[in-house]
Amino acid sequence: MTAQSEAPVADETFHRIYAEVLQFYARTMQLLDAGRAADWAESFTEDATFAMPSRPQPVRGRDELTAVAREGAAGLAKAGEVHRHWHSMVSVEPGSDATLAVRCYAQVVATKLGGSSRLHRICVCEDVLVRGGDGRLRVRSRRVTRDDLA
Amino acid sequence: MTAQSEAPVADETFHRIYAEVLQFYARTMQLLDAGRAADWAESFTEDATFAMPSRPQPVRGRDELTAVAREGAAGLAKAGEVHRHWHSMVSVEPGSDATLAVRCYAQVVATKLGGSSRLHRICVCEDVLVRGGDGRLRVRSRRVTRDDLA
Amino acid sequence: MTAQSEAPVADETFHRIYAEVLQFYARTMQLLDAGRAADWAESFTEDATFAMPSRPQPVRGRDELTAVAREGAAGLAKAGEVHRHWHSMVSVEPGSDATLAVRCYAQVVATKLGGSSRLHRICVCEDVLVRGGDGRLRVRSRRVTRDDLA
Repeated sequence: MTAQSEAPVADETFHRIYAEVLQFYARTMQLLDAGRAADWAESFTEDATFAMPSRPQPVRGRDELTAVAREGAAGLAKAGEVHRHWHSMVSVEPGSDATLAVRCYAQVVATKLGGSSRLHRICVCEDVLVRGGDGRLRVRSRRVTRDDLA
Repeated sequence: MTAQSEAPVADETFHRIYAEVLQFYARTMQLLDAGRAADWAESFTEDATFAMPSRPQPVRGRDELTAVAREGAAGLAKAGEVHRHWHSMVSVEPGSDATLAVRCYAQVVATKLGGSSRLHRICVCEDVLVRGGDGRLRVRSRRVTRDDLA
Repeated sequence: MTAQSEAPVADETFHRIYAEVLQFYARTMQLLDAGRAADWAESFTEDATFAMPSRPQPVRGRDELTAVAREGAAGLAKAGEVHRHWHSMVSVEPGSDATLAVRCYAQVVATKLGGSSRLHRICVCEDVLVRGGDGRLRVRSRRVTRDDLA
């Protein structure tokens, strides 16, 4: 994904973009939670960065993102747990440079197979979304912070 | 505008449908949680099926749906608990046959009167929604799975 | 804010309003959770009322709202906790008098610094929203009830 292939989004009407962003989070986090690591990584630009609390350096690019997601899925399978990501309270600010700045809350809810559910992590997620040449939104940069580490 | 930077013609109606679906879940699950069993059952088609984890066979039709919802409300009243259904991460896929396929997450949050709240169930809800002759969305089929039984 | 300065909202299309309301809750509750008390209070009309479970009388006006929010933020800082408000299951009913009646669910999720997260409160939030002369939505009246006190 190059800057040149990004179509402007700021001139679209807000309600249209807002529904698209909610659908984007629903679809892509469902992919992550289903263990479809490579499909999830496709929701990022090729050169995307993802700064996550558990790593000292941001994860860069789809190969690294896929690897991190696979590692997470393997750990959950071993632990007999299902994790679900709930993005909510989504605030979308269209930028002047064809990007969307999103700030939202994220719950990671964990359920033990045969057991109970718990709030595993409460996070804030800050994304910069861009629209690719194929018209689809993708994450160019993501930064997640954890409330328990704030 | 070059072909490369041109986004595909957006579905003119998607954002409209998306808002309608979110409002549909908000209104109908609030009816269920308020114990308005028959009003909740009206959000299903007359011949709807609802496959739920606690029953070996799908519930069929509004009378059975109403009975199941009444039974649930009576059990909660006896237990001194309030349950709330939180549908979120709603992914909507318009079908070619005038239906909407929805996959979303659902939390059932339980609160003890005079006590604390807990995540009672974490579920995935898969609906087929249809629009009736009166223009309103209704559930034609619903399938709910529980993460703890996955 | 006077009644005369409120533009009608009932004649706008529903999906447009719905996205705006979701964005409104995301932005304003993020302000509250960030401890930006006066900015949060700006999301209410000047003469707004907020009936909350912890107080026998409704809070009235922006000065009182700001004071209550500051007090809450100070208490959390002292306790080493972060609270997040999750408004969801948002049902919006445009009224005939240029108002929006909203009924939604609200989770207050608490996270101990260096510790775990819990569902602190499960609430129902009933708002009357109006549009000011500047075109922005604001809360004219808010009533929050807690499930554990129901």
